[in-house]
Parts: sequence; structure tokens; C-alpha cells
Amino acid sequence: MSKHLPPANPFDDDKLKEECGVFGVIGLKDAANFVALGLHALQHRGQEAGGIVCHHPEHGFNSARRFGYVRDNFTKESLMKTLPGPLAIGHVRYSTAGSKGAVIRDVQPFFGEFSMGGAAIAHNGNITNALALRKELIERGSIFQSSSDSECIIHLMARSLQRNIPERMEDALRRVEGAFSIVAMTRTKLIGVRDPLGVRPLVLGKLGDGWVLSSETCGLDIIGAEYIREIKPGEMVVITAKGGIESVYPFRPQPSRFCIFEHVYFSRPDSIIGNQSVYETRRQIGVELARENPVDADLVCAVPDSGTPAAIGFSQESGIPFAMGIIRNQYMGRTFIEPTEQIRNMGVRLKLNVNRALIKGKRVILVDDSVVRGTTSRKIKEMILDAGAAEVHFRIASPPTAWPCFYGVDTPQREKLLAANMSPDEMAEHLAVDSLKFISLDGLYRAVGEANGRDKDCPQYCDACFSGEYPVAPSDMIEQGFEVEAAE
Amino acid sequence: MSKHLPPANPFDDDKLKEECGVFGVIGLKDAANFVALGLHALQHRGQEAGGIVCHHPEHGFNSARRFGYVRDNFTKESLMKTLPGPLAIGHVRYSTAGSKGAVIRDVQPFFGEFSMGGAAIAHNGNITNALALRKELIERGSIFQSSSDSECIIHLMARSLQRNIPERMEDALRRVEGAFSIVAMTRTKLIGVRDPLGVRPLVLGKLGDGWVLSSETCGLDIIGAEYIREIKPGEMVVITAKGGIESVYPFRPQPSRFCIFEHVYFSRPDSIIGNQSVYETRRQIGVELARENPVDADLVCAVPDSGTPAAIGFSQESGIPFAMGIIRNQYMGRTFIEPTEQIRNMGVRLKLNVNRALIKGKRVILVDDSVVRGTTSRKIKEMILDAGAAEVHFRIASPPTAWPCFYGVDTPQREKLLAANMSPDEMAEHLAVDSLKFISLDGLYRAVGEANGRDKDCPQYCDACFSGEYPVAPSDMIEQGFEVEAAE
Amino acid sequence: MSKHLPPANPFDDDKLKEECGVFGVIGLKDAANFVALGLHALQHRGQEAGGIVCHHPEHGFNSARRFGYVRDNFTKESLMKTLPGPLAIGHVRYSTAGSKGAVIRDVQPFFGEFSMGGAAIAHNGNITNALALRKELIERGSIFQSSSDSECIIHLMARSLQRNIPERMEDALRRVEGAFSIVAMTRTKLIGVRDPLGVRPLVLGKLGDGWVLSSETCGLDIIGAEYIREIKPGEMVVITAKGGIESVYPFRPQPSRFCIFEHVYFSRPDSIIGNQSVYETRRQIGVELARENPVDADLVCAVPDSGTPAAIGFSQESGIPFAMGIIRNQYMGRTFIEPTEQIRNMGVRLKLNVNRALIKGKRVILVDDSVVRGTTSRKIKEMILDAGAAEVHFRIASPPTAWPCFYGVDTPQREKLLAANMSPDEMAEHLAVDSLKFISLDGLYRAVGEANGRDKDCPQYCDACFSGEYPVAPSDMIEQGFEVEAAE
Amino acid sequence: MSKHLPPANPFDDDKLKEECGVFGVIGLKDAANFVALGLHALQHRGQEAGGIVCHHPEHGFNSARRFGYVRDNFTKESLMKTLPGPLAIGHVRYSTAGSKGAVIRDVQPFFGEFSMGGAAIAHNGNITNALALRKELIERGSIFQSSSDSECIIHLMARSLQRNIPERMEDALRRVEGAFSIVAMTRTKLIGVRDPLGVRPLVLGKLGDGWVLSSETCGLDIIGAEYIREIKPGEMVVITAKGGIESVYPFRPQPSRFCIFEHVYFSRPDSIIGNQSVYETRRQIGVELARENPVDADLVCAVPDSGTPAAIGFSQESGIPFAMGIIRNQYMGRTFIEPTEQIRNMGVRLKLNVNRALIKGKRVILVDDSVVRGTTSRKIKEMILDAGAAEVHFRIASPPTAWPCFYGVDTPQREKLLAANMSPDEMAEHLAVDSLKFISLDGLYRAVGEANGRDKDCPQYCDACFSGEYPVAPSDMIEQGFEVEAAE
Repeated sequence: MSKHLPPANPFDDDKLKEECGVFGVIGLKDAANFVALGLHALQHRGQEAGGIVCHHPEHGFNSARRFGYVRDNFTKESLMKTLPGPLAIGHVRYSTAGSKGAVIRDVQPFFGEFSMGGAAIAHNGNITNALALRKELIERGSIFQSSSDSECIIHLMARSLQRNIPERMEDALRRVEGAFSIVAMTRTKLIGVRDPLGVRPLVLGKLGDGWVLSSETCGLDIIGAEYIREIKPGEMVVITAKGGIESVYPFRPQPSRFCIFEHVYFSRPDSIIGNQSVYETRRQIGVELARENPVDADLVCAVPDSGTPAAIGFSQESGIPFAMGIIRNQYMGRTFIEPTEQIRNMGVRLKLNVNRALIKGKRVILVDDSVVRGTTSRKIKEMILDAGAAEVHFRIASPPTAWPCFYGVDTPQREKLLAANMSPDEMAEHLAVDSLKFISLDGLYRAVGEANGRDKDCPQYCDACFSGEYPVAPSDMIEQGFEVEAAE
Repeated sequence: MSKHLPPANPFDDDKLKEECGVFGVIGLKDAANFVALGLHALQHRGQEAGGIVCHHPEHGFNSARRFGYVRDNFTKESLMKTLPGPLAIGHVRYSTAGSKGAVIRDVQPFFGEFSMGGAAIAHNGNITNALALRKELIERGSIFQSSSDSECIIHLMARSLQRNIPERMEDALRRVEGAFSIVAMTRTKLIGVRDPLGVRPLVLGKLGDGWVLSSETCGLDIIGAEYIREIKPGEMVVITAKGGIESVYPFRPQPSRFCIFEHVYFSRPDSIIGNQSVYETRRQIGVELARENPVDADLVCAVPDSGTPAAIGFSQESGIPFAMGIIRNQYMGRTFIEPTEQIRNMGVRLKLNVNRALIKGKRVILVDDSVVRGTTSRKIKEMILDAGAAEVHFRIASPPTAWPCFYGVDTPQREKLLAANMSPDEMAEHLAVDSLKFISLDGLYRAVGEANGRDKDCPQYCDACFSGEYPVAPSDMIEQGFEVEAAE
Repeated sequence: MSKHLPPANPFDDDKLKEECGVFGVIGLKDAANFVALGLHALQHRGQEAGGIVCHHPEHGFNSARRFGYVRDNFTKESLMKTLPGPLAIGHVRYSTAGSKGAVIRDVQPFFGEFSMGGAAIAHNGNITNALALRKELIERGSIFQSSSDSECIIHLMARSLQRNIPERMEDALRRVEGAFSIVAMTRTKLIGVRDPLGVRPLVLGKLGDGWVLSSETCGLDIIGAEYIREIKPGEMVVITAKGGIESVYPFRPQPSRFCIFEHVYFSRPDSIIGNQSVYETRRQIGVELARENPVDADLVCAVPDSGTPAAIGFSQESGIPFAMGIIRNQYMGRTFIEPTEQIRNMGVRLKLNVNRALIKGKRVILVDDSVVRGTTSRKIKEMILDAGAAEVHFRIASPPTAWPCFYGVDTPQREKLLAANMSPDEMAEHLAVDSLKFISLDGLYRAVGEANGRDKDCPQYCDACFSGEYPVAPSDMIEQGFEVEAAE
Repeated sequence: MSKHLPPANPFDDDKLKEECGVFGVIGLKDAANFVALGLHALQHRGQEAGGIVCHHPEHGFNSARRFGYVRDNFTKESLMKTLPGPLAIGHVRYSTAGSKGAVIRDVQPFFGEFSMGGAAIAHNGNITNALALRKELIERGSIFQSSSDSECIIHLMARSLQRNIPERMEDALRRVEGAFSIVAMTRTKLIGVRDPLGVRPLVLGKLGDGWVLSSETCGLDIIGAEYIREIKPGEMVVITAKGGIESVYPFRPQPSRFCIFEHVYFSRPDSIIGNQSVYETRRQIGVELARENPVDADLVCAVPDSGTPAAIGFSQESGIPFAMGIIRNQYMGRTFIEPTEQIRNMGVRLKLNVNRALIKGKRVILVDDSVVRGTTSRKIKEMILDAGAAEVHFRIASPPTAWPCFYGVDTPQREKLLAANMSPDEMAEHLAVDSLKFISLDGLYRAVGEANGRDKDCPQYCDACFSGEYPVAPSDMIEQGFEVEAAE
């Protein structure tokens, strides 16, 4: 099977992409099967590859890494039989922008054998000083097997002078910078860590006598586990099957800066973040958007599928009827052979179709979650106009995306971001639409529950992709010439 | 690759299933590529297998038949190169209920070599006297290569005394009974036929100098073809690349009886039937449903994905807010290994998740398109209640499905149909929901545009699955003991 | 897996190729497993594809057809479980020269459903009037599903007026001309037939209570069956599990003309033909060859692997030591990417290597079984000379192959046969070898046991490839312009 | 494709197995293609998996590792295109006895990134102190990615204080013990090493401007390279494309101890070792065997295929005719489903067949290369007797194999070796043959060219498998309890 699967989201190639999801289980028979289910629920966080490592008292550590969907790989009895034991962790990932050609040895979790036993580790996020660490470790005699930033942690652990693995991990974590939610395991322990700012999510759940770690609560739901709490920013939990949970805080405390884009797009709408339904937050974004940027029109339509909750909110606030003006093809594929040049916008047609009879002669509001390169927005506008719409108004459920993310999200280079080069009005003109409006940064903060909007002196979230204010200096990138010129 | 793909619709196993889609192109370079695209757009009509036959003046007839999705098979350059020429037809199919184990030789189109040249044929529907015809043909020395009813037509054509293929097809068609929309081809002609009642759909389109036949208009949209008209009930069109279209009417004229379930579920919402948008018809069904069966509640939710247009209509008519209470997993799979018995309703959890934070404490109206066996309705109710809903009210966008279809739709045996055994109130009690209401047959007819409802003496549609009134006697089935006792 | 497997014989592309092997079993539990083993033993008779049809009283007829080796397909438990019952037949085949691109529906056995039940048929050989029969049958309304000559027999049977299947087969056989050894089956009978001249082999064996038909005795050996006798030319045996064997003779009696090339090359050396060991016959050919064409030399080497028995005989008769001068690579492959043009004779090097240290400075006799196009002979000579041989003398264990075979053997067109264009001396000069000698036709007849050589008036064997005397007129070929100008 | 391929040698499971072959090329365009060819020629040294690493000035290092035959993997254009550049090394391997389940990360060559650039390494042999080294390295913070002994060398190199890679390798080699022939590469250099005793082979060749390293000369022949010389025991050659070859000697000099079993079985008969043809040496072993152990009989037959040269020699010395009494099936497979228990010795029948007509009533000498467990000898004897042989005499072309090899050969545990438990006469009785004789150790030494036989004080070869005298202490094995009690 090809490594390159059709994406479940039709406009993946014009979206910011979460790079990873992590999941771990301890204290449940055949833990790897639970991990497979959890990863399936987290598949939207990474579709390129998945991996599971597990441990069984008799059969030791075992692992499997595969390109492709969890459902196509980790459902085979022959494979799952090779993954026994009550303790397992797993990982799904996207390919990162820079890598040319994925290789299986880059697929997490990573495993290392120490003198006191083995350990496996998987993370969601990005270590911003990984290149510097790698250089230093190679000079001291470490052999790297992958191009992944995560492998640094294993090598730092191997060289720690501590006598047990969790303490070695603490040693290692104190050397790394960036955004990371980690699940790790030894022969007897499941470990979860969030970076000091808590940029990426990680939640704790309970099922029977077992404990579960998951990037999102939807991973708990699929196995029927109870949601207990979020892992705190800077917290490291060490869980044993019998002894329960112990918390340590390896880092200097800092105010948290959770990624606000998880609310906008990355997380699944049925997940809960900080006691808020993601769906409800998105609907509320639509409400704010309608208040900030009203327009007279006949229909509110979503750009499927991620724009739907905000479109519903926009409709409810504005009183303009919500309708399915664009229908997604459930059997998407990318790679049909174009028979001739006669088919305009063939790429988009494979993914969706305009509801012509509905759209014809109407003034249409299109609600989308974000504008990255703008290539998709242009094609959708064309299809809507081809179908006979009278007017097309874009309403975007996030502020202009003007800065790349260095914390585990795949973003184009800055010069490719439409908002890095144009004002919203220029963008509207560029896309030739009747209007194009974004929610304000303050409006977004209000929608996620900050009644007073963004605190300029100490923002409650990481919003670097909108503001250019990077809460952790991306030191490897700066070394390579990236200029952080914070938006004033 | 496995023959058994995850379904794109999460509740496929508890739905009536359209068995086929057909598509044909003449007069366009590399016609097979257009057919592949058209079949991709018709994939919802049959997911088990697909086939294409084409003809090239130099390379003659070529064909390919494959199990699995169109996007996984007919996108490979190596395969498509073997399908050259300006004339091609194709077919997607479901497996029929009765067959034990699919074999590739049952995959259409069928091909036959006659003394005046070859012909290929594919159809959507069911020939109700196929077994009797088959018996007769075997006794006269025909060798059947498949278990498909369609092969009869080829053998009847082989034995016709006519000197050209279209006339041989007319001969053959006069012997067959049932519901069928056919696309066929000779070396130089594309042929389309609808049965005298016009039970199954077939439309004509135009792209540049070429002509297109498709089960639905969404197949025209994907290739950018213009929708010209429907093929008429009982019409046979014979199209040549240069000479255009000729119509003949091989059958005795009859009032048309189009399948009303195409409006309810089979067709894609972005298709147009008889100048009506399918999406708009379904929304209107929701409106009628809200009028006939109002209920006091907090939220209107759709059972994804097919219930959504009716749910929107219900919300608009009732004023109760529409919300995404059930979120579908975009990466569905059927076959995960159940780790223990701890996971309740695991099968359903793989496909969707309840939006717990939204549902909790609410009175929820669930709009679904139909109830077949009722197994899914029960599981969804349980998940909604587990998530803390205060009340659950089902509203069904079609009348009770009490009779099997013999016209090309895969239905369970009569005794498995919940509505064949219970009244709506008994069903509500059986499913333990607060209420369960169906749209009336007259309400459905109004929604599809018959202002005065159903004409009892001469119904405007085939509604046998609701009424038990079969417009064509299913003679093979009657031979096998099926009792047609029309509901009074 | 690719359809195109590396050949087990290194010089397959410059050999005459037997096109088929057949095998059948009745009265043994899980008969298909025995058939798989038998076909494996007959794999040298056809490597492109294999098929098995079986019958079980409860599960009816089942079949499987696959491209590739028997060992790669018919060893899988999942497949073999679908082939139950005490009665089965099977077939292995080569592709025929003329066909462009193999298709699975051409793979035998063929199956037909008649009004009195089904029958399957497989054959080794060629029906020389197949095209004429096909034309006639199509005109009468038969639909052909393959391009194979064998399918004619099924259609002729379908149209027979007889009331049982063996008698229908007799009817059909009386219409066909050519060379054919058939195994066939009904629900309760195993049937074996040889054409009136007995051109192709077919033997009968017994294992426990069961009966076995096989192209060669090596197929009996692998399952431990006892060799009973050959089916006689013109004989049709009808075997039932309980009732034993019945013989009928549908054809007019004729003197037999067994294919003499089966002795030279086609059959396996461990098979027995007419009470003679094939190995011993080939050794005896080497003896005759040494007597007819002696030469002073240091070593006798075989062109592997088929030349070995004759080379041993040549060595024993001449007293010149036998040696392995050419070593075959056991892991042959055809399709390596040529790194540059630096590698001379790369194709041959992939298959074998000269034993340089042995050959250097020696006068070498190379014994090969036949010369077809001569391309291989040239390459081998070059390798031997590159390795430093002083002289190279070819001795060929068959007379010059100057005529194509139309009886189930894949031969190049006449103009490609080296011996059709040159005398042996011209061939020696063309190949630039020190000498090149063939066994005489009489010598070959003596080696196979005819002490007085060939009977010119009534030859004991079919030797058309050497003599141009075709015992059955190849009528389809003559229709297409082939000129039979018998060598005088 | 399955990892478990049918073996090319029919009795692989009752043979000692060479574990690896190595090959390297510098200075030729598309070097990886040459390496693929070379590995194909060395496939007999390891059939489980193969790997290639290459370097291109622009595209850097690239690699591919695959389970299965070279011909099935490294012949695909899509793969070979990913392996550009003028410098490449490769490796084929067997699985080692102890490993449970092969994993791709154990497939060589291994690659390591050092601060001064990358290096790759592959070896044939075994490092006898690998476990001790591994333990030490892990304690110092190295992370091992495989279970292979070879990985130690990379980690030792990573920790060396030297400033260039060849010197780091010298550092590393001085820490390892055992038998090893290494090919390695940096960005610009091809490196070859043999251990101080020269236990395993490695030869140097030249093709155009390029240089080649290969385990055997047959690897040079396939690409048409000229054989230059053997790498000397203890020698390390460092080759650059332009500068040619430099030799260093990192080890303390010792008398050489080449593996005598390479002559008996491991090497291909068309290879040359120390100016001797392997084929000729084996023939000479047959001559010595006939002199030491004559017997009156009718036929000399080889156990195919490895016994053939010795059988020819035995026949020539004894005057008893050589014959092909056992015919090997060229399409061997292991895993047919046994239809019933009726088939005796089914496993052996899949691989070969006795030439019944030849054997019947004869006194047969069977020449085999070795007896390991004796399981195969017993089955062959039974088949020969079943075919009616009057007497069966085994003659074995090597002394009794009584000790395991720890130098890169897969041998059963000592207690499984028949000769560790029985005298030759007991073995004859155990196998129930008329006689069973082995060549003497002195006879074997004479056959390989030592006119005075074995030098007891300082044996010219490693013959530990016969004598129990291990030239390098197998320290890891001794640590695990193996008792080296040298044969008296």
C-alpha cells in the first residue's frame, strides 16, 4: 500500500497540520489493543504513520511501526499478537515539511536499551534546540538512527548518571527546549510529561484498574475510559500498575501558554479542553465572527468539514439559514489521471461538489477555519461562482495566519503564508471575492472563554502563528537564519 | 488488499443499499479516465467492486475489473494505459445479499463477442425473471460464466436473429422484466436504456464533443459535463461519436414509477432528480416531519451523515437549534481487535463519538433517514443516554420500511425488517426511546413535490418497500415462495 | 507479485516450450491438495499460471486460478480450504506465443454449467481447428469468455443432444482435430482422454482407493501413487469413485505418433515413458551422439541443466571426462538493471558462470539438448572462450529443429528457427565454433528404442519439428497461410 | 511476500549455513547496481535478507534493506533509483539460529553518523566478544538499535578519539575478537578488512577504473571484473576512487587459519580460493574419498546439488559409473498442505524424486558433502530403498561434524550434531545403511592441497567443526557455559 494516503480532510494541503498524537496505557490486559483504538481516535493528528511499543513480563519489549492508517495496520490479528502485555504506548505522526521521503526508522516511539533496562518514548510537539543537542551528542560518540528530534531525549537519557529511568528522563528534559507532550514507558512504568508552557495537550483517564494517557479526550471516549484531568504544564506523571500516580515538576514554573489553534482546528470537535467542548468553542467563534463581521446574505455554508461548527454559530447569531452548499465526496482520492485539460479544478472536484440547485442565484457566506496559502479558497470561490452564486463572502474562524509555527505544527515557510504578504482587504481583492473577513485576535480569545480578550502583557495562549510572539525562542531556526520580528 | 473495505457510511450494515452505479462516455479522448472519475463520483452506489470496458479503433476492446474502491484501482497509470480509446463504460457494485463470496467474474460490465463484433453491457437494477431466462438459455446450450442476472441479456443478444447489435439488444430487452438502467457499448456506439417504469435513474450529459451517461448528475459535475436531460422511462438512446443521439422505445408504454427511496437515501445530496435538488428535497422531508411529528426539545441532531439535510429542515421548521451532537470518525474501520469485553458498543465507537459536553442534560431529537433492522438506532440511543441526555426522540425521514426491494436494492429478508413485525409505537418501546415517529407516506410524497400526496390508484413512484405494492411482479421470487400480499 | 517469474530453466527463452500439464484425482479426501502436489511436480510443463477445479457433494463446484508458481499459490491454507471434496482436476500452463498479455480467464480448467449439471475440463495440447469451430459456434449464439482453444469443447458439449456429460464429451471430441490429452470432471466422474495419435502423454495411477491421472509419472511419485499404465491413444477413460474405470474409444483407430521431443526435453528425467526411464533414454542419446560425431577433446560439459544426461552418456561412450564446466546460479533472475554497458553478456551471467579454472586451456565439448534460435549457443560459446578454452565443440542431442510445432508446444515462427535457414555446417560457421554436430533422426529413433531407426513410411513418433511431416493437418494455420511443404 | 523463501538448496535445514556475503564497489557509475549483481552472485551465502548503502556527492548516503532474495528486491527500478552514486556496499544474510523473528533493523549494512561524516559497515563472520563489548558500551551511554554483533563496531568507532574514520575503525577493530571479513565505506572511501586469522574470505577485483570487494570470486565474474588478489589475513585496505589502494595492518600478525568448510560446502563451485578452483578441490575430495573408502557397487550418485563434484571425482577414481539417481525439483517449496497422512516423506518428495527405473536392483553409492543432524540422510536412504535399490552406501566428503562453529556459521547446538554422539559405525547402524564412511581430516587436507595432510601443531586451516580446536576463544559462549574440550 502506498505511503501516501488520501487525506480525510479535503483541504489538508492548504491547512496547518498537527504533527502528532500520543497514547499510553498501563494496567490493562493486551494494552496494545487499547493503544491501537486510542491512536485510531487520534488519527486526525497524524496520518502518515503509527507505532506501538509494549512490554510483557515474559516476552519483554515488542514494537511495530507502520506507514499508513492505524485501521489498516493495527487491526490485524497476526500483528497484534506480537504486541502482548499490560503496558504500551503509541504514536501517530504527520511527515514534517522538511523531510524528503519518510523512512520507517523515523516513526516513533523510539526505544533505547539502558544498563538498567529499556525505555520507549513518543512525543507530540517539537524540540526547538534539537539540532544543537544532536551535534553535541554526536561529538560525544552517540549514534543517531533517525532524523527525528525525539531521538535526542533517548541519547540524553543514555548518558545521564542517574540510576533509574524516570530520573534519567528528568535529567534529559532539563536540556531540551520547545513544546512537547510526551508519553514514555519502562518495563513497569507509564510516564507522561508536558512542557513547562503546556503548549500541546495531554490528558489522563482511567479504565477499570488501568490508567490511560491521551493527546485528547476523544481517545478516552473510544475505549470508554473516564476523563480524570489534564496533565499540568511542566508536570511529569509516573504511573505504576499497582502504586498509582506520582507527580514531579522537573522545570522552573512558568505561566501556561496552551496552543490556541487546538481550539480552532487541530483537536476533534468532540474533545474537551479545559472543561470546554471544542465543538461549542468553535460554534462560539462563529457567533463572535457574525458579530464582528456581519453581512447581508441568503445562506451560510461551511467549507467542509472543519468550518461546520463555526458556520452553525454564524447562522444562529445572524439568523441567515445554514445550508450544505458544498458536499464532500466520502471516497476522496488525490491521484486520478486527468483525462484532458478540459476539467477545470479537477483536484477540488475529486473532493467536493457544489450543490448547484441550492446555490444558484444566492448570496453565499462561506465559513472556513483558516486561510493558509489561499489556494483552496480561490478554487472554492470559483466553483461557487460557476454554480451561479450571486455573491461570495468569506468569513474566517481565526485571525490571519502570518507566522510559521515551530512547536510541532507543519506550516509553510513564511513567504508562502498569504497573510504574511497581504492585508485582509488585499487578500479579498487577490481572491476576487465580494468580502473576506477574519475574526479578531480578541474575538478569538473571547470565544475560547477569556471574557476580556487577550492579555497583551502576558497572553493566556500561544498564538505565535497569528501574532509572531514566540513564547520559546526557536533557537535552531534562528541559527538557520529565521528572523523573529515580533508583530508590534 | 482486502475485498472488504471500511464503509464510508458508518451504518451501512443497517441501511438499504443501492446495488450499482453506471457511467458511459463517447467521443472524448481517453474515455476510460472520464469513466473512472464518474464512477468515483458514483461510489456511494456500490463499494465492493468496479469495472471498465473500453474500445479503441486500433487496440480493440479492453477491460479491467477490480475489487475495492475506484480511487484505489482506477488511478494507476499502469492500469489506465491499458484502457485506451474514445468510448468506454463502467460500473460500480455492491455485493448482493444472497451471494456467498464475491468473484471477479461477477463484476460488470459483461462482454460478449458476436459474429458482427463485440458488445459490453452494465446495468443498475435487477432482472426479476433472470432465473427463468437462465434455465431456458442453458437448456439451449448457452454457457454462463457468472451468477449475475445481467449475463442473461448478453446471451439473449447472442441468439437474436437481428443483424446489428442495437436491434439484438431490443430483442433481448423485450424478454426481460424488472428494473434496470443500462449503459452498453459496441465498437462505435454508446447505448443507454431505462426500464419501462423508469425505476432506476439515468441521465445524459455533454462535454465538448462528447456525450456522457451517468446514474446521477453528480457524475456529470465531477468531469464538468453539462446536464442535458434524463433518459426517459422505456427509452433506449443509441449515441455515435459523430451522428449524435437516436431514440427508440422497445417497450409498451406505461406510467412511470421512479424509486422514491433515491430521494430519501440512495442518491447523493448534490445530485438533481427531475429538476429538484436532492438536498432540498431531504430538507423539505425534515420540514414535513417537523410538522407531522412535533416535540418539545433542546437540540436537533442528525444521525451522521445521511440524516443531516432532514435534521436541518426539522430545525428550521421547529425553531429548535441544530447541533452536531454525534461526531463521525473520518477514519472508520470495522475490524479492530476488541481488547477485552470492557468496551461497550465498541463497533459504534469506532465510527462515531457523542459530543458529551453538548448533549449532557439536553432533550435531544435525533433525525435519521430510515430504520431497517433497528440495531443501529438502539446503539446510538445508548450512547446518547450514556452521555447524559435527558430525553431521546427519534424522527425518521421515511415511512416504516416493511417490505424488501427486488429492484436492485439490497434489503434484509422480510422477517428481519423491524417495521414488518412492529408498529411504530412498539418500535419505540422496543428501542426504549422517549418517542419514535416516521414521516407519513403522503408527507413523503408532498416533500418530493406531489402537493396532493400519493395517488392511491396510480402511485407516482415505486414505494414497494413502504407499501408492499410491487409495480413489476418479482416472478423469480414468487417462484421461490415469496408472498406478495399487498398492504391495504 | 509479478506474473513474470524467473524461469527455472536458464535458457527458457531459447527452448521449445511444452505448454501444459494436467492432473486429476478421484476418491481421495481433499483431492485438491493432491492435485496441487501433482501440479507442482508438473510445473516444468507450464510456469505461467495454474488452476484447480474441485467438487464436494455439499459445497458443489469450486475453483481457483492463479498466475505464478503452484508453490506460491496453492500452498495457502486459506485458499485450499475453499477447494474441498474428493474429486478435483488441475492444470499448469505456459503462455502461448501469440497472446498479448495473459488474462486470468484464459487459465484452465474451464467450467460449464449444463442442464444436467456442471463439468470442468483441462487439456494439454492444441486443437488445430479451434478457430473454425469458434467461428461456427459464435454464429450459432455461443458467448466465448476466453481466447483459449479449449473453450470450444465446452461449447460443443453444451450444444450436444446427448443426455449425459460423458456422451456429450464424445460428441464434442469427434468435432475437434489436433493433439490433446484431457482431464475432465463432472460431479461424480473423473475423465481422461488422449487424441487418436496419442501425441501428448497421460498416465493413470492408483493411491489407496483413489485414482489419479497425470501428464507424467513424476506426478504420481510425488504423492506416492502407483503407476498403473498409460492412457491409450484414442482412449477415453471414465472413472467413478466406487465403480472403477470404464474405457471407450470415440475415434477411428490410427497408428500412434507420440511426440519424440518429450523424450528429448519436455518430460522430467525421472519420469517413465512406455517403460523407459527418460533419463536413461537421454543418456543413450549421448551415447549415440558420441558414436555418430566423435571428436578429440579434454572435457565433456553439459549446458545446464537439460543437457546433463546426454553429456554423461557422451562421456561414458567417448571416455572423455565429464565435468561441470558451467555452473548455474540457483537464484536466477531476469531483470536486473544493467549498471552500464560495461557488462558483456549480462543476461547469461545472471543465470550461469563458467568454471574458469577448469576450462582454461582445455578443448571442451558442450552437449546441449537442442538449438532453436541459436542465441544462447552463441553467448555460451563466448563465455567459454572468454574463460580461455582452447576449442569449443557443440554436440546437440536432437536433430536440427527446422519446423514449428502446432500440437501444444510454443515454437518461434519458422523464419526464426536457425535450422530452417542454415545447414549444420553453416550454423557452426555462424556461431563461430570449432564444430557443431547434431544427432541424426535415425540415431534419435535408435536411442528411444527403435533398433532399426525411423520407419519412413509410417514413422513411429511425431517428429514434425525435425521432419516437417505433420501427422494432423494444422488447418487453422493453413487457413492463415502457413505452407506445409514436407521435407523430402 | 513472505520472509520465508523456499531454499535453493534442498537440504538447507540439515546443513551448516554460511551466514553472510559482502560486496563493495568504488569508482563505477551507479555502484549500487553492481552491488546488487554481486550480492545476487553471493546469494548462496545468505538468503534471508539483503541491504545496500551507497553515497552520492550530491544526494549523500542512501540505503535500502529488504527481506527476501536480491533478485526480488534490488531489481526494481523505483528502488534502485533511490540508490545513486559511485560508491556502495552491500550484504546478504541468513538468520542466526538463536534469533526469534527477524527484524529489518538487524539487516546490514549498519550506518553511523560521526562528527566528521557518515560511515557504513557490513561483515561476514562473528564477533566472539560482542556481548561483553555491548554491555560495556551501553553502560557508557550508547544506544543499540539492533541485536547484531556488527553494531558494536560502529559504536566503538563513534567513541574513538581519532580524527578520521579509517583510524577510528582501526581503533575499533583492536577491541573485537572473532572471525570477520568487513566491507565498509565513508563518503569517499571503500574499506575492506579480514580478521588476523583470515577465517572468512574476501577478494579484491578491478573493473575499468573501479575497484571491487567480494566474499568470493563468483561475485567478480558476474560483473565481468578481473580478479586481482585476496585481501590478506589481518589486512585493512582503504581504497579511494582516484588514489588507489592503501594497506594497513591493525592487528598483531598470526599464522592464517582459513575456514576449511568453505572448500567443502560454503563457497560456490565456480569460485577460486587461493588459486584453486573450488569445483576441482571438491572433485579431488571425491578422489581421496574413493581411495580411503572403496566399495563394490553399480552406481555413484550425488545427493543434489552440493555432492555432485565429489561424486564425479569418486566415480572417476573408482571407475564406477556416475549417474543422476536423484532428480531435484527445480520449483521447490516447503509448505504444501499435506492432504492426508498417506504420503510418506512428503517433505523430501517436494524437493526431489528418485530415478526409479535407474536405481532398481542396483548397489548405489551416495556421495554427500556432510552429515549434520542426519535427518536428511535417513529420508534419502528410505527413498532409495523404496525405489528398489539393492544396497546403499554413503560416502561423505567431509570428516564427522562434531563441534559447533562460532565464527559466522549457523550450526545446531552440539547435542544435535549426530557426530557428537556417535562413531561413524554407530551412525551407519543408526541410519540403517549398508555402509557410511567419512573422508579423514588428513584426506581433506590433502584434497585442498596440503600434500602432507594436517599439521597437528599448527593446523593450516580452521577446522574447529571437525576437531573442536577453536583458534579464537569463543568468549561470549564460554561466559554462557559452553565447554571447549578440545578433541584429543
